[in-house]
Amino acid sequence: MSLPKPLHDLFGYIEKNKRKFIENLKEAVSIPSVSGVVEHRPDVVTMVKWAENQLRGLGATVQLCDVGVQTMMDGQKIPLPPVLLGELGKDPAKPTLCLYGHLDVQPAAKEDGWNTDPFRLVEKDGRLYGRGSSDDKGPVLGWLHAIEAYQATNQDIPVNIKFVFEGMEESGSLGLEDLLMEKKDTFLKGVDYLCISDNYWLGTEKPCITYGLRGMSFFAVEVECAKKDLHSGLYGGTLTEAMSDLIYILNTLVDVNGKILITGIYKDVAPVTDAEKETYKHIDFESKDFQEEIGCNQLLHNAEKAAILMSRWRHPSLSIHGIEGAYSEPGAKSVIPKKVIGKFSLRLVPNQDLKKVEACVIDYLNKKWEERKSANNFKVTHMHGGNPWMSDPNHPHYEAAKKAIKHAYNVEPDLTREGGSIPITLTLQDITGKSVLLLPMGACDDGAHSQNEKIDIRNYIEGTKMMAAYLFEVGKLGKSD
Amino acid sequence: MSLPKPLHDLFGYIEKNKRKFIENLKEAVSIPSVSGVVEHRPDVVTMVKWAENQLRGLGATVQLCDVGVQTMMDGQKIPLPPVLLGELGKDPAKPTLCLYGHLDVQPAAKEDGWNTDPFRLVEKDGRLYGRGSSDDKGPVLGWLHAIEAYQATNQDIPVNIKFVFEGMEESGSLGLEDLLMEKKDTFLKGVDYLCISDNYWLGTEKPCITYGLRGMSFFAVEVECAKKDLHSGLYGGTLTEAMSDLIYILNTLVDVNGKILITGIYKDVAPVTDAEKETYKHIDFESKDFQEEIGCNQLLHNAEKAAILMSRWRHPSLSIHGIEGAYSEPGAKSVIPKKVIGKFSLRLVPNQDLKKVEACVIDYLNKKWEERKSANNFKVTHMHGGNPWMSDPNHPHYEAAKKAIKHAYNVEPDLTREGGSIPITLTLQDITGKSVLLLPMGACDDGAHSQNEKIDIRNYIEGTKMMAAYLFEVGKLGKSD
Repeated sequence: MSLPKPLHDLFGYIEKNKRKFIENLKEAVSIPSVSGVVEHRPDVVTMVKWAENQLRGLGATVQLCDVGVQTMMDGQKIPLPPVLLGELGKDPAKPTLCLYGHLDVQPAAKEDGWNTDPFRLVEKDGRLYGRGSSDDKGPVLGWLHAIEAYQATNQDIPVNIKFVFEGMEESGSLGLEDLLMEKKDTFLKGVDYLCISDNYWLGTEKPCITYGLRGMSFFAVEVECAKKDLHSGLYGGTLTEAMSDLIYILNTLVDVNGKILITGIYKDVAPVTDAEKETYKHIDFESKDFQEEIGCNQLLHNAEKAAILMSRWRHPSLSIHGIEGAYSEPGAKSVIPKKVIGKFSLRLVPNQDLKKVEACVIDYLNKKWEERKSANNFKVTHMHGGNPWMSDPNHPHYEAAKKAIKHAYNVEPDLTREGGSIPITLTLQDITGKSVLLLPMGACDDGAHSQNEKIDIRNYIEGTKMMAAYLFEVGKLGKSD
Repeated sequence: MSLPKPLHDLFGYIEKNKRKFIENLKEAVSIPSVSGVVEHRPDVVTMVKWAENQLRGLGATVQLCDVGVQTMMDGQKIPLPPVLLGELGKDPAKPTLCLYGHLDVQPAAKEDGWNTDPFRLVEKDGRLYGRGSSDDKGPVLGWLHAIEAYQATNQDIPVNIKFVFEGMEESGSLGLEDLLMEKKDTFLKGVDYLCISDNYWLGTEKPCITYGLRGMSFFAVEVECAKKDLHSGLYGGTLTEAMSDLIYILNTLVDVNGKILITGIYKDVAPVTDAEKETYKHIDFESKDFQEEIGCNQLLHNAEKAAILMSRWRHPSLSIHGIEGAYSEPGAKSVIPKKVIGKFSLRLVPNQDLKKVEACVIDYLNKKWEERKSANNFKVTHMHGGNPWMSDPNHPHYEAAKKAIKHAYNVEPDLTREGGSIPITLTLQDITGKSVLLLPMGACDDGAHSQNEKIDIRNYIEGTKMMAAYLFEVGKLGKSD
């Protein structure tokens, strides 16, 4: 397939402006917009306003939407960062594409084991290191730069575009769903296709399009034994300690093989069909590479390819993330913490339902707590979550994306599902009733949520070309039914 | 018992200089000498030098003794703060008293729930709040101010004094034992009595003298599952997570009734005799007050007075302090931590032996790990510890201390044991072969190792008088056999 002339010009512009686009990402990464840490909320707002400015620069009309306050576990209420909505183009003859991205990032600190300051974009060996470089500031900028390429090369953008950029994705997208529901018949009216670039290739070489995501359900389990932290010498032995209660409870969640122990949790999981099994055979995936990337001694499920893919894509999993309130620093502190809060989450799959899972987990833990017979205070809270999502990978929208990838990378992409959760995917699909697809820019080894997050320059720049080509191909689709 | 003239003058001076003594404590508290946090080690050195200056001001000869380096868990070697040795008086006719105190403090941060900056001494309702106010800067200054009172009132100090002030007590007194062994025939030669003021009254009203301490044994259990932190969506379900392994292991340590589950751990615990049971009856202690101070819903052992005292003084206990490497902040982070380190410690009692306990715990955990059948990396490390200590409460030295307390507080003190650990107590007793006693200054509700640590002005000032009176009474004892 030879490259159409408009794409030739667009790709040339993008190639030529590579350094500028990297500089722009540097600026975005330097804003520590960590939504999960209260002290960083003002930075999230700064980041939203930074993106607002970029959109205005492209000629988009924009609005910052107030989505209310968040009530913290201690009762404190803090304002949520505004959601940035934008519109570019209103041509009734063109299809309308809705792009979603997020401007907030996961927590990061040098002490966690970063080789460089996480909020300074550092280029090394063709890679750009920095928190948010891949998740999700790089992809958001990719869209903006693709649009810039159209404008700078004097080409008509073949679609109307609506932007939904939020600042709370890493903290459950609080407030967004309500806002989008409210905008169903105004801002979201007339949307034909939706695209989200907030996930990763299955490997490091081959692009993919993603048609399914796991949901997630995040819990906090709180145990309180005293009104103040206690010296373990002076008080140890006289009371049941909150930590030992919490450890007991957390130990009832998952076994050594990753099997979730919560009664009834697997009940609604869709059975694996033979046809489904067949699809795994053709996916470009090597368990050995995957294990190497993780650096673990042994994968579960005998490292069998289909089993590993299924454990990531279509089986639920449970992870224990940490404990708040206990001693967590290096060194030794002989304290009995007064109150400790265990954090864990489940990844949900079709046909599990968020509400049912929440009830199931809370019921199970309350029973386990009763069995424990501790005199301490106990509370389970569902912090946030979202249902799993699946789409039809044979929709013309997906065909357009495949063509776009072929233009940019000259390969046929894999069609994948993902273990991660972007709850808003399902929300957007439900509200609009239109086809949503995930078009990842980053590679599997980018380390989203991890130390030394990066995006390869190749992914950042060719990904921008892919986005420009995707706008081109979606334009050719015309309006949806 | 009417107050002897010298004590009358000393007490008057101390009373008159109350504000000055509080100001001096303020200065000491303002130095964040947290030995357990590497970044604060320079502050520990600053604090040692501050104390050195104070000793010089009293005319003592001093030396700062290098005690080598500490090897951290990551292999890094950092220098230990020097130990401050001081000598005041060399009159061969007087008995020689050795005073031990420590200049380092437990970690503390406003975010942990302090009402005020932990490193600013704040006076409120007759109390002085600040990290180290009671543990152990207040008591160390008490000795210095008692000596100042002798000098300012032109009275001969009736004892020669040797000072041992260290900066690593909260982190296992690393290096101190070796130094003291080395100084057995030089600095420590000729010591007749030893006194440590680093513990607390049993209650808040009545002073006590302490003749027994539990030992302690601090462990770190490390599990590693990956070479980097992982996104729980992308990787959850494909490997056994370090957190679930660690939780499993920590759950094998202690049950809901505080019973330690480690095989063989109770084997060497001295049996309770009827004579011993009798002594608990006479101790001024109310379980109800103790429970109220803790703020727990229910004490163990049916809150029975003797059982509670025994669980603090003469039975071992196990506390789980926290987990390093996992997510510990408020909010939600969907991470699979690559490496997590659980911290727990045991309090040891006669006739348990540190070395035997260490072997017993490591053996038990290795067996439990084998049962777990996880492919991850596992390591148990004994971080630090000390044997339990007991002394003869009928020694004339204890009689002298009782008289001193009567002079200052006009009551007969309780003779108590303590749940906490000051390993150096036993070391000093073993090296010198002389009588050691613990003469607490602070009250049980001071919150050592907790948020809002404080010392009551009453304890600080009357405690200083008690110390002055103790020097007076020990002087009358003459040299030991």
